[in-house]
Amino acid sequence: MDPTRVFVKNVKRVVFKVGTAVVTRSDGRLAVGRVGAIFEQLEALNSQGYEIILVTSGAVGAGRQRLKYRKLLNSSFADLQKPQVEIDGKACAAVGQNGLMALYDSLFSQLDITSSQLLVTDNDFKSTDFRTQLSQTVNSLLALRSIPIFNENDAISTRRAPYEDSTGIFWDNDSLAALLALELKADLLVLLSDVEGLYSGPPTDPNSKLIHTYIKQKHLGAITFGDKSRVGRGGMTAKVKAAVSAADSGTPVVIASGFVAGNIGKVLEGQRIGTLFHKDAHAWVTFNEFTAREMADAARDCSMRLQSISSKERNKILLDIADALEEKQDLIKVENEADVAAANDAGYDESLISRLVLSPAKISALAKSVRTIAEMEEPIGRVVTKTELADGLILEKTTCPLGVLLIIFESRPDALVQIASLAIRSGNGLLLKGGKEARRTNEILHKVITGVIPETVGEKLIGLVTSKEEIPDLLKLDDVIDLVIPRGSNRLVSEIKSSTKIPVLGHSDGICHVYVDTSANMQMARNIIMDSKLDYPAACNAMETLLVHKDFSSSEGLQDLVVELSHGGVTLHGGPRASSRLKIPEVQTFHHEYNSRACTIEIVDDVKAAVDHIRKHGSGHTECIIAEDKRTAEYFLQHIDSAAVFHNASTRFCDGMRFGLGAEVGISTSKIHARGPVGVEGLLTTKWVLRGNGHIVKGDEGVIYTHKNIVSSES
Amino acid sequence: MDPTRVFVKNVKRVVFKVGTAVVTRSDGRLAVGRVGAIFEQLEALNSQGYEIILVTSGAVGAGRQRLKYRKLLNSSFADLQKPQVEIDGKACAAVGQNGLMALYDSLFSQLDITSSQLLVTDNDFKSTDFRTQLSQTVNSLLALRSIPIFNENDAISTRRAPYEDSTGIFWDNDSLAALLALELKADLLVLLSDVEGLYSGPPTDPNSKLIHTYIKQKHLGAITFGDKSRVGRGGMTAKVKAAVSAADSGTPVVIASGFVAGNIGKVLEGQRIGTLFHKDAHAWVTFNEFTAREMADAARDCSMRLQSISSKERNKILLDIADALEEKQDLIKVENEADVAAANDAGYDESLISRLVLSPAKISALAKSVRTIAEMEEPIGRVVTKTELADGLILEKTTCPLGVLLIIFESRPDALVQIASLAIRSGNGLLLKGGKEARRTNEILHKVITGVIPETVGEKLIGLVTSKEEIPDLLKLDDVIDLVIPRGSNRLVSEIKSSTKIPVLGHSDGICHVYVDTSANMQMARNIIMDSKLDYPAACNAMETLLVHKDFSSSEGLQDLVVELSHGGVTLHGGPRASSRLKIPEVQTFHHEYNSRACTIEIVDDVKAAVDHIRKHGSGHTECIIAEDKRTAEYFLQHIDSAAVFHNASTRFCDGMRFGLGAEVGISTSKIHARGPVGVEGLLTTKWVLRGNGHIVKGDEGVIYTHKNIVSSES
Repeated sequence: MDPTRVFVKNVKRVVFKVGTAVVTRSDGRLAVGRVGAIFEQLEALNSQGYEIILVTSGAVGAGRQRLKYRKLLNSSFADLQKPQVEIDGKACAAVGQNGLMALYDSLFSQLDITSSQLLVTDNDFKSTDFRTQLSQTVNSLLALRSIPIFNENDAISTRRAPYEDSTGIFWDNDSLAALLALELKADLLVLLSDVEGLYSGPPTDPNSKLIHTYIKQKHLGAITFGDKSRVGRGGMTAKVKAAVSAADSGTPVVIASGFVAGNIGKVLEGQRIGTLFHKDAHAWVTFNEFTAREMADAARDCSMRLQSISSKERNKILLDIADALEEKQDLIKVENEADVAAANDAGYDESLISRLVLSPAKISALAKSVRTIAEMEEPIGRVVTKTELADGLILEKTTCPLGVLLIIFESRPDALVQIASLAIRSGNGLLLKGGKEARRTNEILHKVITGVIPETVGEKLIGLVTSKEEIPDLLKLDDVIDLVIPRGSNRLVSEIKSSTKIPVLGHSDGICHVYVDTSANMQMARNIIMDSKLDYPAACNAMETLLVHKDFSSSEGLQDLVVELSHGGVTLHGGPRASSRLKIPEVQTFHHEYNSRACTIEIVDDVKAAVDHIRKHGSGHTECIIAEDKRTAEYFLQHIDSAAVFHNASTRFCDGMRFGLGAEVGISTSKIHARGPVGVEGLLTTKWVLRGNGHIVKGDEGVIYTHKNIVSSES
Repeated sequence: MDPTRVFVKNVKRVVFKVGTAVVTRSDGRLAVGRVGAIFEQLEALNSQGYEIILVTSGAVGAGRQRLKYRKLLNSSFADLQKPQVEIDGKACAAVGQNGLMALYDSLFSQLDITSSQLLVTDNDFKSTDFRTQLSQTVNSLLALRSIPIFNENDAISTRRAPYEDSTGIFWDNDSLAALLALELKADLLVLLSDVEGLYSGPPTDPNSKLIHTYIKQKHLGAITFGDKSRVGRGGMTAKVKAAVSAADSGTPVVIASGFVAGNIGKVLEGQRIGTLFHKDAHAWVTFNEFTAREMADAARDCSMRLQSISSKERNKILLDIADALEEKQDLIKVENEADVAAANDAGYDESLISRLVLSPAKISALAKSVRTIAEMEEPIGRVVTKTELADGLILEKTTCPLGVLLIIFESRPDALVQIASLAIRSGNGLLLKGGKEARRTNEILHKVITGVIPETVGEKLIGLVTSKEEIPDLLKLDDVIDLVIPRGSNRLVSEIKSSTKIPVLGHSDGICHVYVDTSANMQMARNIIMDSKLDYPAACNAMETLLVHKDFSSSEGLQDLVVELSHGGVTLHGGPRASSRLKIPEVQTFHHEYNSRACTIEIVDDVKAAVDHIRKHGSGHTECIIAEDKRTAEYFLQHIDSAAVFHNASTRFCDGMRFGLGAEVGISTSKIHARGPVGVEGLLTTKWVLRGNGHIVKGDEGVIYTHKNIVSSES
């Protein structure tokens, strides 16, 4: 549920208004499919106990369509030669209202709903008696679970020109709906339109953005309205006017599309559909669709300034961060303890809470790692290759920052500090979204870090995104954000990949394998396996599957290992061969990450079978072979196509700090850009810099190519 | 239009069958929204001149719902205590048919369509007289543009148990629809269902794939059917049986979802919606959804074998390709001339045709560049970094192939050869889709190249995708394909990015800038500008915008330059300042790629303003500064954030061959992975190889980290 839409929980009585553009098609006929779909949604709400009041337009249009046909049938050939006069609007209304209600009744009957018709004029509302009685009638109908259907009684209305007159109590069905919402004490008014909601500009302009929450102070006057709807009286200006007036009087309003299936239900569930008008909106909204872009733009501007300052100045920021972390330790502790207490109350599991805790020892270690990153060789502007293309024409490939990164990370506040440090070291702007359980810790850490960023760079270099609802807005900004790194479940990564054009550096499951070859040193195998599984079972680089050579499987060694793992509290599951040999339960699938004290064991024929098994069932993270035979080991190292492949070493070494990268923003199982633990290098790109002296191509006869490699370095 | 659906062009008479699951909702009530939407589509087809016949189910379900209500109303409290007996099916049919037709008539009336009801039993069809007369009646109705609505006359049918008996002429509405399609000589039968079509397995199984074209020889027996629909008699087995029988008798059948808005129109437009049954299908289908995966899997398997052979063997393949290209020159010429002739006939423009032509000189140059690529240093398995993590624990970062690439390229057959050579050199499998204008040339080149790939690798290393329709299937295979490189318009790149989870290496517009500083050497400026614009105006690295320092703009130099560009046939457009100074038309937007003999000129205050202009309006491709002042040039080189940034050299140098990369698969304006011209290096990733001797992590107390850099190389 969107935080600004929480109020829908208490909504019971809802006025829906469907405009002419919703009810009719472009050819003037009734849009029977759309109307049917809307009615099915209203029926669902009705059966859930909501009280539904409907205001419908469309009678005049439907009547005109019918009368045109009638006139044609009544016409002689001579009649048709004459200039055709427009059919009287009131006649259209009279005919159309009838047809509209006949269809509505027929549709609602199929849904076992008894509908009722209430035709009113603005004059009626001048009478207090009328108002009281109307309320009573509607209450009676609602008590019988009937749906009252309102329309202006156009056929007998004495208003001069219903299309222009805006002097009455109501002047179109939008304002009628707003008036009824107040009169009948509705909890919500939903205006269904042919557009998604209110846009910052005309909906046809690709730069227009849908406004999810209307804030008078911000939007009044700042919005360019498009042309009014092709049909009907209202248009968006009228809708906004009606919506603002209803919202000011206390009835929240949502303008949403009547064209999108299921929209109505979503509005009532509090999803961020259409545009909300609420008298308290200005107080809630700290972030919205405008803010997303502002945040990203600010991070980009600051990153450009960060790149312009000297390497020494950049290092100083990092050293200042390390100092500030230690100085503000007590402040951080208070906020962190609050998060931990809340997580304990919520009954989160041990592993989440252990990641959440930011002990003084952890803070010291963090400060130390920030200082290590500060001491690293300057990564920006490093010349990767240098080539003489032709005499005097020198091409360099140099490193440069990516720009702006969006990193979504789990409830692990130390990650915030590491990621921020790597971003500053690599000259990038950063937008961070941490797990909600660490909200208070993340906020104080963010404050401590941005507090030491000098004004010459700007504290908006690092933005903290505080709600999950903001992510979709950020994912749209492929022109400002250069890379998204989601740390979390395979599903999160997959969802983000499907919903953005921004490149995603992802980490899928960590189904790490250890293969014990027939040539393995048994004692070493035991040590590595125990470490790979038990050093930190919840880590993505922990062993999940143990493959054992068939010769080894019949020795006592395997039995000893099984016993040792069991003593370590590890639950064992087997593939078909291992489960029958070891009498352990058989796994459903080999592609499974336990993330706990459990693992799968299977017996394989040889190293080739082990490689095949891993390629088929693995997730491309980290695999290890334990073998004394070098040729076997090299076969494994060459043929495994994972981010990391180890010989006689624990899978737990796959980590940015352990690899000597200082820290990591994550471990990538993507093959593109960066793979394995991603430190500073993965946050850089390169640009080609060519220096000449008037060199031209001229059909490749302008220069004589030499293509001489001048220097080559890579740290 | 899908190539297997071309026949729809000649379709006039269509039988539509809507099943119970389409017409009713899960609560038994009629799905008024869905039915309305379907009827609106039928109305649209009717008004386009199609002859529509409808077969509807749903009467029994709707009747049961009504009778339940009636029974409830008639019940005493005592009645309700008794066990409830199931309501008689025939009674339900009698009541339901009435209600169904009342709704249908009401909906069709709104759409100005006169519907008609025809209730038949299987017995009726035994009479030839009946059949003749039925045809005549239907023809009369269709001639009046009425829509005949058929159903089995369940209420009076004497069939024992309509739900099980399959001995009659028809046994459910699917077979009734198939029978009517034949009897009434329909051109197409559309069975609307609650699933998308026929799947290779149960639709709930995520591994099931939608079958777009049913091929009896391939699919019969190979498909696992899911459970039958929740309601109605048919289920998918019955639908397929009916569809196969109708298709065999000559009426094509499409099974499609009645739940998806607009599906019906799309089927009639020949889009690949649902599953097609056609008696000639086996002859047309050379590629389908199974083939996409097979192709990609085969390319992956071959690439793994390619990686296993020696560097020398890989080089030999490339040298053999070069030889084969020269040997088969005449063969290639014939096919290429056919493509060029067709392109000329189709009236394509000069630049397309010049790219299409593969002259003997171009073939020689291609063979030469393939040999250059063969001679390059082995790129696979190169050690990028080598670090001692701890005593005896050595970490290497080594290069390795990405896996399988999908490259979509323009009608430029030399690109096929270059891309294939780079893929082989870098150990990757390849799927190629070239522009349709070069189809015959691409096919012969593909044959020549795969002809020399040894059996130990397999010719399926390089797959040639021949139709655009196959791309969506390939873009789904993010588990097999590692990188997509679309060469073409910004729109193509953007569309592909939105529709796949596979990483995309894209090349957006090439809006390249040349900035002439006040310190420029005027003669050099003129040479570089003329070369940048005119060496090949259609290239992406051609200059599109010329920025001129304000001091230079008042000198004669600018006027001379304008004259020279005009003599070169270049049409000039100006920004606000230049257009008034030079009396040339003002541009609408600076973000414009002419790709022809035209460019934009604007006057800027200084190098800083030039950088700002480029960052705001450029596309991040290639920018050049012409200046003698080194500090100004360095400011430009540092602050421009484009893939390539040049000092005193033509923008046309931005090219894989000119940069010394041998060739290029494209120029990337992405920042992720590879940037600028992409040769072999951009087709590689790295993996981390760690060699130890039993090293374990043990809470980071298992080893003493040294993190010593051992060797570093990058070519």
